[in-house]
Amino acid sequence: MLLERDLIQSVGFRNVREGGEITGFQFRLRMPSYRGMAASLIDGVAVRVGGLVDVPADVPLWTFGGRTSSLQELWDSDGIRWPLEEAAIVTVPHPGGLPEGTHEVSIQLRLRMSYIPQEHQPSTYEVSRHITLTSSEEGGPFRYGVSLYSFMTDYGTVMDLETALAAVADVGATGVEILGEGHIERYPDPTTEWIDRWFALLEKYSLEPTNYGSWIDTRLHSSGVHARDLTAVEGAGMLQRDLRLAKRLGFRFVRPKIGVVSSDLIPHPIWTESVERSLDLAAELDVVICPEIHSPTPIKHEVVDDYIDLIERTGTQHFGLLLDTGIFQDRPIPLKPGELPGRRPAFLDGIAVDPADIADIAKYVVFIQAKFHDIDENLEDQQIPWEPVLRALKDAGYTGYLSSEYEGERIPWRSLEQVRRQHSLIRSIASRL
Amino acid sequence: MLLERDLIQSVGFRNVREGGEITGFQFRLRMPSYRGMAASLIDGVAVRVGGLVDVPADVPLWTFGGRTSSLQELWDSDGIRWPLEEAAIVTVPHPGGLPEGTHEVSIQLRLRMSYIPQEHQPSTYEVSRHITLTSSEEGGPFRYGVSLYSFMTDYGTVMDLETALAAVADVGATGVEILGEGHIERYPDPTTEWIDRWFALLEKYSLEPTNYGSWIDTRLHSSGVHARDLTAVEGAGMLQRDLRLAKRLGFRFVRPKIGVVSSDLIPHPIWTESVERSLDLAAELDVVICPEIHSPTPIKHEVVDDYIDLIERTGTQHFGLLLDTGIFQDRPIPLKPGELPGRRPAFLDGIAVDPADIADIAKYVVFIQAKFHDIDENLEDQQIPWEPVLRALKDAGYTGYLSSEYEGERIPWRSLEQVRRQHSLIRSIASRL
Repeated sequence: MLLERDLIQSVGFRNVREGGEITGFQFRLRMPSYRGMAASLIDGVAVRVGGLVDVPADVPLWTFGGRTSSLQELWDSDGIRWPLEEAAIVTVPHPGGLPEGTHEVSIQLRLRMSYIPQEHQPSTYEVSRHITLTSSEEGGPFRYGVSLYSFMTDYGTVMDLETALAAVADVGATGVEILGEGHIERYPDPTTEWIDRWFALLEKYSLEPTNYGSWIDTRLHSSGVHARDLTAVEGAGMLQRDLRLAKRLGFRFVRPKIGVVSSDLIPHPIWTESVERSLDLAAELDVVICPEIHSPTPIKHEVVDDYIDLIERTGTQHFGLLLDTGIFQDRPIPLKPGELPGRRPAFLDGIAVDPADIADIAKYVVFIQAKFHDIDENLEDQQIPWEPVLRALKDAGYTGYLSSEYEGERIPWRSLEQVRRQHSLIRSIASRL
Repeated sequence: MLLERDLIQSVGFRNVREGGEITGFQFRLRMPSYRGMAASLIDGVAVRVGGLVDVPADVPLWTFGGRTSSLQELWDSDGIRWPLEEAAIVTVPHPGGLPEGTHEVSIQLRLRMSYIPQEHQPSTYEVSRHITLTSSEEGGPFRYGVSLYSFMTDYGTVMDLETALAAVADVGATGVEILGEGHIERYPDPTTEWIDRWFALLEKYSLEPTNYGSWIDTRLHSSGVHARDLTAVEGAGMLQRDLRLAKRLGFRFVRPKIGVVSSDLIPHPIWTESVERSLDLAAELDVVICPEIHSPTPIKHEVVDDYIDLIERTGTQHFGLLLDTGIFQDRPIPLKPGELPGRRPAFLDGIAVDPADIADIAKYVVFIQAKFHDIDENLEDQQIPWEPVLRALKDAGYTGYLSSEYEGERIPWRSLEQVRRQHSLIRSIASRL
């Protein structure tokens, strides 16, 4: 398990319920020193939250190893420790708790260092951060999940598997989506030990596997003196390898990302045979193959027609559509430093598919990747119009997963807080539909 | 194991020796995609190093899972993979290798993504970074180690125990120093599983435990209505707890950081009795207790005299001095943003102890923490005058460890490259003394 760099962690920020009442809120603090220390060395933490809360240093309660104490109890204690590797849980009594959403939390933490001259004591740490409460909203007819794709670049550099799953569970999600060749150690042949750990972590964090991302790499051998195209048999082999592995790990959906042959993402012609050869296996495993409808491909497009044609032609129950909400993006992704307007692929400005188009294909949609890029501290999404999208999904009778796919800036740890904002935002909207 | 955020990793940069010859150099690359992929999708990596090396994309060799291939061999391969969780090892043939020190390494990496329109292919990644070769210098009479203190704030946020130990081994160090309450999970009662893993990792990375940092927290109960001083018996209890735990983990030295009662770090008066009560145990365990001489305390100071007096008075072989090279700092640590000159403790400008003073106390010095703050890409230390310090240590007959203590800016991952620079710098100087 790894902690966020900020002293104030976004993971763990929540209202606290005792009996039927919300009695306050809590958040987690990373030890600012280079060492862990006895909790009797803590001289308290003053906490402010926007204009809502302002409590002095002796008010918050402290939880270490499941045991909660007042500051005076910490001072009298022996053997309670704030370890370097574990965040302290700080609980602030505040009847009714904080309102849903993002809050600016400010702290002044005081620690006594025995080895620093008294005139410089206590050591104080003052920091502020915008963090988002675990949502308390029902969330309407949908189920909520997170794809580990959201944590791209963070995963493996500031986050390991357990840290990622703990963060997913902490937003209140019940489902987790992974990428086969990305999150499975030693893919495609994970060790039994790894698989055991996968299931143990799912149980620990009460998560179910949802969708498993795979690839049909049509350009696998397209360079060099022996360059050649992938065959349909090879494509089917790749897909079937992932269907079996996905099933072994408990997944019910597999999204093959199929190689393309055109600017508007027309899949390589081997896709049909590769999929059709795999339908019996998908049925046997009861796993649904679901290629994605992904920007710049809109809903009304021959690619989608071809997918639906396959379903109608074969009558299969094990092929469906995965909708990536990036197709509804109606405002541009900001230019990167040095990027010139008109000099990047046009779809980055958003292809703004009309959510009303969902109705036409809704019966084939089995899974939704809730793609997004940037949600500000007022919970306003800068690119995706969630209200009409969620309304259209509800009206179409969709009751499956909304699986977060954060695809914004890869600043370390940013993904964690962005996913929290998205869950609060979309649950709030869905609850009011 | 976690990777550095930069695609070009500092850990793993080294000259390659085959038989008696240096045939080239190698470095590690993190997969830039959000997925791992078959190695046949790599379209090569062009590499430049300053004005010394400039090779096209098809020249470097690639190593995955211990197997080394040319680019054409990767194209023809099936089943060789570049996993998300493992850096590729890129080897550049270059007879004689690179000269000792820091180099600007630039790459242009090309990967084929089957799912991106052909007109945007291959995906290319161009990055440059200054990284430092694992030193090839002998290093004179000293032994070389690293304290995990160097990785403060990185440890637990971007680095786990194995990542840290692998980085220590990769600079060519043979010794590792830890902080008991900081790097031992569930201190002071680590699980047997943790201890087994500790020894397994030491063996894997060929490291020996050197010094173990502990604290005598004299202000443990100095707040609240029951505030009181620590007793000598309690101080001895703390020290003995750490002596036993250090021994269990294989350490030969324990540095107790003793609470202070003055601006020039005079230790709390209980220190003498706390130590004297622990000398028999130290002898029984064969562990040497060694408080540090640390800025702003110079060598010629009553604190040091008192420590020496204890050694002379008791005749113990299990108490000695630890020298922190921060006392030799002769140039200021730069002001932080918003920090005003003259408004911070004066010792941050450096107390510039004369290295000649080492001679007077050399016979009592058992360990050295090689404190430093900033070494630039020309391997010039901005604060510590290594040449006279190392010369004085050599002249005094010191042959023990120089254990890196990086104490500079806590920018994520910076510590890894700074420690590499320090080892290259001090080994080079020591080799020429």
